[in-house]
Formats: sequence, structure tokens, C-alpha cells
Amino acid sequence: MNIAIMGYGVVGSGVAEVLKKNHASIVKKSTQDELELVRILDLRDFPGDENEKLFTKDFNDILNDDSIGIVVETMGGVNPAYDFVLACLKAGKSVVTSNKELVAAKGCELLRVAEEMNVNFMFEASVGGGIPIIRPIINCLAANEIDEIAGILNGTTNFILTKMINEGMTFEAALKIAQELGYAERDPSADVEGKDACRKICILASLCFGNHVYPDEVYTEGITEIALADVEYAKAWGGVIKLLGRATRYGDGKISAMVSPAFIRCSSQLAGVDDVFNAILVRGDAIGDVVFYGRGAGKLPTASAVVADVVDCARHSASRKVFGWEDSIADYVVNYKDIKHPFFVRASFTDEAAAKQSIADAFGEVEYLTYEGAAANELGFVTAPVAQSEFDEKIAKAALTVGSVIRVTDY
Amino acid sequence: MNIAIMGYGVVGSGVAEVLKKNHASIVKKSTQDELELVRILDLRDFPGDENEKLFTKDFNDILNDDSIGIVVETMGGVNPAYDFVLACLKAGKSVVTSNKELVAAKGCELLRVAEEMNVNFMFEASVGGGIPIIRPIINCLAANEIDEIAGILNGTTNFILTKMINEGMTFEAALKIAQELGYAERDPSADVEGKDACRKICILASLCFGNHVYPDEVYTEGITEIALADVEYAKAWGGVIKLLGRATRYGDGKISAMVSPAFIRCSSQLAGVDDVFNAILVRGDAIGDVVFYGRGAGKLPTASAVVADVVDCARHSASRKVFGWEDSIADYVVNYKDIKHPFFVRASFTDEAAAKQSIADAFGEVEYLTYEGAAANELGFVTAPVAQSEFDEKIAKAALTVGSVIRVTDY
Repeated sequence: MNIAIMGYGVVGSGVAEVLKKNHASIVKKSTQDELELVRILDLRDFPGDENEKLFTKDFNDILNDDSIGIVVETMGGVNPAYDFVLACLKAGKSVVTSNKELVAAKGCELLRVAEEMNVNFMFEASVGGGIPIIRPIINCLAANEIDEIAGILNGTTNFILTKMINEGMTFEAALKIAQELGYAERDPSADVEGKDACRKICILASLCFGNHVYPDEVYTEGITEIALADVEYAKAWGGVIKLLGRATRYGDGKISAMVSPAFIRCSSQLAGVDDVFNAILVRGDAIGDVVFYGRGAGKLPTASAVVADVVDCARHSASRKVFGWEDSIADYVVNYKDIKHPFFVRASFTDEAAAKQSIADAFGEVEYLTYEGAAANELGFVTAPVAQSEFDEKIAKAALTVGSVIRVTDY
Repeated sequence: MNIAIMGYGVVGSGVAEVLKKNHASIVKKSTQDELELVRILDLRDFPGDENEKLFTKDFNDILNDDSIGIVVETMGGVNPAYDFVLACLKAGKSVVTSNKELVAAKGCELLRVAEEMNVNFMFEASVGGGIPIIRPIINCLAANEIDEIAGILNGTTNFILTKMINEGMTFEAALKIAQELGYAERDPSADVEGKDACRKICILASLCFGNHVYPDEVYTEGITEIALADVEYAKAWGGVIKLLGRATRYGDGKISAMVSPAFIRCSSQLAGVDDVFNAILVRGDAIGDVVFYGRGAGKLPTASAVVADVVDCARHSASRKVFGWEDSIADYVVNYKDIKHPFFVRASFTDEAAAKQSIADAFGEVEYLTYEGAAANELGFVTAPVAQSEFDEKIAKAALTVGSVIRVTDY
């Protein structure tokens, strides 16, 4: 069986490398006689590259080559990846992608076309890089009703937060180092504003709960507003701040989905996930909490997930793997204003007694946090669980100048 | 498709419960019209049980019932489970088991018979309880050459060690609580002496490295000799003591496999795995380190892994899942005496200067550890990496009365 790669960037070239390096064992596991990379689509030139002879700039060279049964899409972005993937599926080719933007935007439709054409559309690498998560949810947790998923889904922001937590570095300084190390783009907004994590929680929520969740349905907040003072208050509370994507199934057929910074307890398996590592917690009704941990990005880890999908496509070239989800339905994702959490608040005051009185009037009993070196006119506290809308009303009434508001979790 | 269960203990009754509770979604995922539990084999009586009508004491009622396509074996032990499983496979029935003793002793043969009969033999629940590990190794990490596996594979010993580490409880006191809570058997030897973990590392090593590893080839040491002083020295070193099963692939086609207590750094993802939880670290050449964490035992978590296998068998009733390993070969598992580690030693002395001089003479530079409250005539130190055989010679020569020797890891 022949393979083509569309997009020879970091992941695409990694796929070529892994296919070559572990060729013999990969072919054996695929149960095919051969798995050969025969075409690479990229508009750029790669003079001197070991795969130089395989390059083409014309998508039709892949589409019209009947020997190509599996197409790897590692271009990124929705367009033209969507058109190319759709055409490949309609031509009876299986497609493997690492493109979370594509799956979050078009996953439901592409899975349906794959089903109609009796081919596979797989995307293990789109969430958690090399961490096995899509397939375990489909296969291994099949006996469970999944109630919740929560994850550290973006390595760049986790690297920045780790520097802030462990080394007391500011957000700006940590971002600069991340950019120097190649962990963050020159325009870091997709990462630091939570958009990347949002796409991933959309894919996980769609898979776990059965209906497509689109990025614009998910309340998304990044880490650009996190101050070192917040990190210290989190320590005083007994935890750390992580950027969490999370989704929960409610009893009435609705779900919640959200990306935001969150306090998590040090005892949580998610708290010790540092640097560019990712971890995803799945809460099932029979199994309880399961956590999957590993490298959420990077050339070879991500490529290894893509190649595992290629092997699976090759194994199942006759019989399609059965999974998918339905399209979005109205009022499926609850408004984030209706979701209850405890909230951490950092605020400054002019009169401490008046501030505390107004907090008590608004929230009743709260947990005050302190740390050595805190600003004299600042306080930090954690409320009881309260819906966002109610919280917003109450905090507006209190005699405080609010610095930060961060959700508190029990993961 | 009909299902039978052999052995209605904790796991077997859990399987019946999960099959019933999540029946609709399980049948849907199985792609069968129906998945019905029709027979339960157990020599005991269960008057009033909701499945009372399904019980039989005669194995032939399952073997000769052609409507039964999948048999769940949750009896435990090698005999008569082995005879029953073999007969079922030969009769063309797929078998799902949670029985690590059976798989560690007979896995290679049973997989071969399953292959010959074109049926499935699956055992996700035999390692790590509900944690997905067998299937991710087969499928998701297919692009990797796996170099190492290490895991906290036994919940009972991990519970005891957690009590010793976090609450300063002695081994004996912690074991008593584990027994009261039902985490440890009245005869706890299979757990505390490491036999259970040994069976599990045999299964993992067989799967990852390609040849069957039998329990009697694996050096196995339990936790019965761990003293609270060792726990304190581990803290001083910056780590914790865990019972680890681990296996490593060497370049020359040989492997190592071992179960023993080990020092692991607090920064390791395995260090925070507490109580009855398990975690398994897999190190692949492309993916790096991946960790799978969850409940390693318990009725519903283990049953959920069994039922996931049942669903997979039902899905693949026409096309067998392809995996397995070859039989054992001579000199495949290296002698544990040849394996190099750093060693932690706790020892008492009569003359401190003479003791330290003899340690320097034997081991060169070592790292001394101290903690508040250590016995006055005792010392703790960590050596450079050294083969066990060499270590044994050197420690015998030193002027010390050795209290503990514990291997030091870099996981």
C-alpha cells in the first residue's frame, strides 16, 4: 500500500522520518506487504532533502494516483486542507491528520464522508501530540459512560506557566524564552489566548459526548492576564495554575465546555505536568479517573501518533474502524455563565475592613489566602461554588478593584 | 452475540453489572444487534442474585452452546482456567480474561491457538486493572520501538508504601489497614512479595519486546523489608520508594526484567501515584515517555477493561485483531546480577570514620544522605551505577552491618 504526505513541515517531515526509521516493524504491524511513501505535496522546495524525488506541487498527483491508499495531512489550517482531505476521502483514500483546526471545524462532516466511502479518517495526533487519547477513548473506555474530560492540552502555555510557578518568571519573560526555544510562534496568540486548547477540547468533547462541539461555542480564556501574585496565591491555596480545557456531561443531555486558567490542587495528577508536557484526565462511570501523560507536541512524538494511525488504516483497509459523532444540536453546550465553580479573586482595596465586609455581604464565607510578600493593599480569596452570572453580579457590587478572577477545580 | 462469564467473584460480577448498566451504548459500540449475557459458570451458589437463572456448575454448558461467541474468564489462577480457556478457543469462541497469572504463564500458547482458530484472546484487564495499556501499546505506539517500560503495577503495595511515606506508618501497621479495607488478602504474600507485579511485568515485556518472559526468569523482590528509615532517606534524597516492575530492551536482542522497591525522584510522574492507583510509563524511540494512570484494581474499573475487550471482540468477530509474541528463547532475559544501577544502602557501624573509609575504598565517591531523627550509629548513601554482582562483592568487603539495599532509578 502506498502513502502520500501533504505538508512537509515539522510534523510531515517527522512522519517521513518515522516511516523510514522503523520501517520493518511498521510494515509488519500493518499486516500489509509494504507501506511505501511515494508522494509529498508541498509548495516549497526542499533541495537536497532525502525525499527530494517524491515532491510535487500539484495535489492532483496524489488525488489521481490509485496506488495511494492512505494520505497524511499535516498542512495545518482549514483551507485548503479541508478541500484536499474531502477530495481524498471521496476518491476512496483513507486520511490521517494531525490538524486540530480542521477536525474541530469539519470533523463531523469528514467522518460522515469517510463512512459513506467506507474508508478511514483518523486524527490521533490532533490532540495531545504523541499521547494516545483518541483511540483509548474509542476502544478502551468503550464500557464507560464518560462524564468529564479535563486536560493540559497546550504545551506552550504549560511551559510558560511552569516557568512562572517554578522560577518566579513573569509571563512576558517566560513567553520570550518559549519563543527563543521554538515552543512559541512569533505571533503566540493561538497558544496564549487558548485557541489551540479550545480546538482540542472541541474534538475531545465531540468524541466523548456524541455531538459536534464547535470552537465558537466554547468559552475560551488564555493566560495573558495571569500575574505572579496569582501564582503565589495558588501556592498558598495548595495548588498551581494550569490552563485547562474541560468538558462535562450533564444529566439532561447538555454539556459544558470551556478553556480557562484554573487552580488545581498539588495532589492532582495534573498538577505535576510541567514544561511542554500534556496530560488528559478522563472520568468514566466504571473506571473512575484515568490520566494519559506525555509529549503534547514536537516532531517525533506527533509523527509517531500519525504513523500509528497510518498502521491502523492499513490494518483496516478492508473493514472500516467504526466511530464518529453526530452534528451539533441547538442548546447542546450550556452558556458558560450558568456553570458553577468556586472562584479565586485577587483584588486591591483602599479600606481593608470595608473590603472584607463587602466580600462577606456578597459571598458569605470565603477562604482568604495570604503569602509572604503580598502587596499590602491586596487580598486573595476563594468563594464557594457559584454560577458565573451570579458571581459577576456579586463581584461588581463589592468594594474592590479586581485584579484577577480564576476558576477553582477539583481535578 | 451471546456472552458467558466463568468465575463470578469481584471482577466477574462487575462485568455482569457493567454489561447491564451501560447495555445500550455497549451494544451500539459493538456493532452487533445484541450482546446478551446468557451463562455464568461458578461452583458456588448465589441465591437471590439477579443473574440467578444464568448460573451453571458445568463448563460444558458454555463450551457446547454455539450461541456463545465470547467467553469472559475471571476465575483467576492457572488451573482450571487454562483448560477452560484453551477449550473455548479451540471451540472457536473468543476469550477475554483479567487473569494475569494465566497470561503470564500461558499467554504465548493461548495467543497462538487463538490465531489458528481465527478468534480473539484479549487481556487488557490483566495489567493495570482499568487503565488502558495493552491496546495502546499494540495500536497507538505502533510507530515506536519501545525501549523501556516501568510501572507501579500493584495497588496493595502502593497503598502500604503511601501510608509509610505520608503518615509514617510501619509496614506492619499499613498492611493491617490494607487488610481491613479489603485491599490486601489475608495471605498478602502474592502482593507484598512482588509476585503479582512480576506477572504483570512479564505480560508487558512479552508484548513490548516480542518474546514470552516467564515469571521465574524475573528477579522479584517485595516490600516486606522496607523500614521507615528507608522512607526517610528517600525523602532526603528527593524522592519516594515505590515497588516498580520494569523491563528494558538492550541493543543485542536481550532484555532485562525485574520487580523491586526503587527510589524514584519526586519530579517523576510515577512519584505522585498514591494509594491503590497504578501508573505505567512506556518509553518509545519516537514518542519519548508516556504515562498511563488510573485505578489498577477494583470491581468496576477492572470490569470496564474486560467489557471494552468484549466490545472489541464483538466488533472484530469477522476479522481477528492481529497481535501476539513469540515463545521464550534461551538467554533472552539477562541475569539480574549483570544489571547496573546506583544502589541506596542503609547500614549501621561501630566506628563511623572506619565505616566511611571502607565505603570510600569499596565504592569511591558516594552521596551521603541524612535526616533529622536518624539513628546515631546508622548511615545512608547512594553509590554510582554498578552491576549487582560487583555491588555484592564490594558491600561484603565494607565494614558495615547492612540494613537495606534499594535500587535507585531515573524514571
